[in-house]
Amino acid sequence: MIPPEMFVKDLGEFHVIHLLADAAGAKGDVAAQSGLLLSIGDDAAAWEGSDDSTVLTTDTMVEGVHFSLDWTGWRDLGWKAIATNQSDVAAMGCTPKYAVVSLGLRGDLPVEGLTEMYRGMAAACAANGGAVVGGDVVRSPTFFVTVAMTGSAEGDRPLLTRDAAKPGDVVAVTGRLGSSAGGLQILRDDLARDSEAETYLRNAHNRPTPRVREGRALRTLGATAAIDISDGLVDDLGKVSVASGVGIDLLAESIPVDERLKRAFPDDWLTLALSGGEDYELAFAAPADVVAKVAEKLDLPMTAIGRVREGAGIRVLDADGVEIPVDRGGWDHFE
Amino acid sequence: MIPPEMFVKDLGEFHVIHLLADAAGAKGDVAAQSGLLLSIGDDAAAWEGSDDSTVLTTDTMVEGVHFSLDWTGWRDLGWKAIATNQSDVAAMGCTPKYAVVSLGLRGDLPVEGLTEMYRGMAAACAANGGAVVGGDVVRSPTFFVTVAMTGSAEGDRPLLTRDAAKPGDVVAVTGRLGSSAGGLQILRDDLARDSEAETYLRNAHNRPTPRVREGRALRTLGATAAIDISDGLVDDLGKVSVASGVGIDLLAESIPVDERLKRAFPDDWLTLALSGGEDYELAFAAPADVVAKVAEKLDLPMTAIGRVREGAGIRVLDADGVEIPVDRGGWDHFE
Repeated sequence: MIPPEMFVKDLGEFHVIHLLADAAGAKGDVAAQSGLLLSIGDDAAAWEGSDDSTVLTTDTMVEGVHFSLDWTGWRDLGWKAIATNQSDVAAMGCTPKYAVVSLGLRGDLPVEGLTEMYRGMAAACAANGGAVVGGDVVRSPTFFVTVAMTGSAEGDRPLLTRDAAKPGDVVAVTGRLGSSAGGLQILRDDLARDSEAETYLRNAHNRPTPRVREGRALRTLGATAAIDISDGLVDDLGKVSVASGVGIDLLAESIPVDERLKRAFPDDWLTLALSGGEDYELAFAAPADVVAKVAEKLDLPMTAIGRVREGAGIRVLDADGVEIPVDRGGWDHFE
Repeated sequence: MIPPEMFVKDLGEFHVIHLLADAAGAKGDVAAQSGLLLSIGDDAAAWEGSDDSTVLTTDTMVEGVHFSLDWTGWRDLGWKAIATNQSDVAAMGCTPKYAVVSLGLRGDLPVEGLTEMYRGMAAACAANGGAVVGGDVVRSPTFFVTVAMTGSAEGDRPLLTRDAAKPGDVVAVTGRLGSSAGGLQILRDDLARDSEAETYLRNAHNRPTPRVREGRALRTLGATAAIDISDGLVDDLGKVSVASGVGIDLLAESIPVDERLKRAFPDDWLTLALSGGEDYELAFAAPADVVAKVAEKLDLPMTAIGRVREGAGIRVLDADGVEIPVDRGGWDHFE
């Protein structure tokens, strides 16, 4: 439908917005979604009130900093922009609801690519919950995508927060760690690995699965402290440690790592698992009996990796209890 | 407190966020605000449920496209980033509630400037409602500020929307038009005018007042169609015209323009009032008796400028009913 040689600069803002609203399915399906009063095309989106608590988060991806079109396709880019926000909502134990998308666009971006991106956003919403209900499109020398998303907290259980870890709690994570960072290395440095590992790792980087169902289950079953792993396990647990005023000891050998990551990065997989970012798994802290209940309920692998203690800071220990130095800060974007 | 020679690149993301949260007053006052459960420092902000409908809007300002630090100071920049979103909320007849701020920062931006910007955001919230409750800070080659803001609709009246203008409705605007665009010309081209006009026009550009009280009054008193004037009167009423499936006739001589704008731009003031952007006044359509009621209730000047008719498109007419050609599209950022 859209010619590949049509670029953003050939269209006005009004037309870009309407094309993208179509691609996001925002005019039909979304408007029919329960509770939504108004969608794309007014000064703001609107929905009916509800007794549930609401959460609001935002996440930005900047070309050349957080992504490159050289190794992330348009559809994956849209998926990922939504998934990172769904992951924040999941880390609170909530359900994604409404999203607004702000696009800063270079004039030489292809319109067809942008509509593909919106299809990726719609796919992420269909898979993990929520809907794109509005946004803003502006010209910018640097291409960026900012999403702000609300989520709702059904039921009476307190939200999962970063400040609720207590000494004695078990620390656990969903899924496997380091795969996204491994995938990024393969994509960015054009590394050759066995094709099964390559496909899995690339996909882990470009199409992460936010753990929405798991976050909800954690909250329902009585966990209270959680965070999603976007900046790397040690870095993100560091935020929990500071917010909760506790220390955390991790057992290196218990960190869950996929065999394909170990195969592709035989020397670096532990570093990737400890410090690599963008896994979008959930790390949480809870009493041992709650962790056991959660492990039983979830389809996804869930692994106890450490323990909350009095004190401060994150220690990663080997099997003999000796501390392993961890290279941090690779994801602290200003350093 | 913050040395002027401290730049973003000298700090990590974590420290930038905490400095800015302090500047926004987000840790004290905001957390005490009714209904807010969680503020800056978790994966998402959170608040209690409410029966009121909620609106969600977002607005982005990109350096070199929407602003320049050469003519907009840090504090005004923060004010304006919030005010543009408050204006969208006002255009729905709602009250600003919660905002998240996404910053794309060049490493060479001064930290002191950013904290000033957050003080401007806090001032806009204190003056016009709402609170900054979270956000995201990332590195970017281009400096940008994206705000997403929720608003609540107290009471049972329908929201003000773009698609509710009906033939026969009177079209009216709050305040005076073109002053912001005049101010921009003075600032950008370093024009010399009498100092009273200069001060007024610069201020109109850098520190717009969102018409929150007026938007609420419009909805309460039975207006149904409104939009805020961000892209220029004719352009924005064009959106109302398309959404409502109607035409609109405007009377050029009734467009309200400040004397200081006429004095500073004796040849161009009408063009500035018709096509200049960023006035952030409200344009609305309502039956004549509703407009009369609104005019009586508001402290702010409110002026009837035209009439909704069957058909399509915007016509600007002179005193003899002859159509005046209007130069549009200056604010369509891709052209």
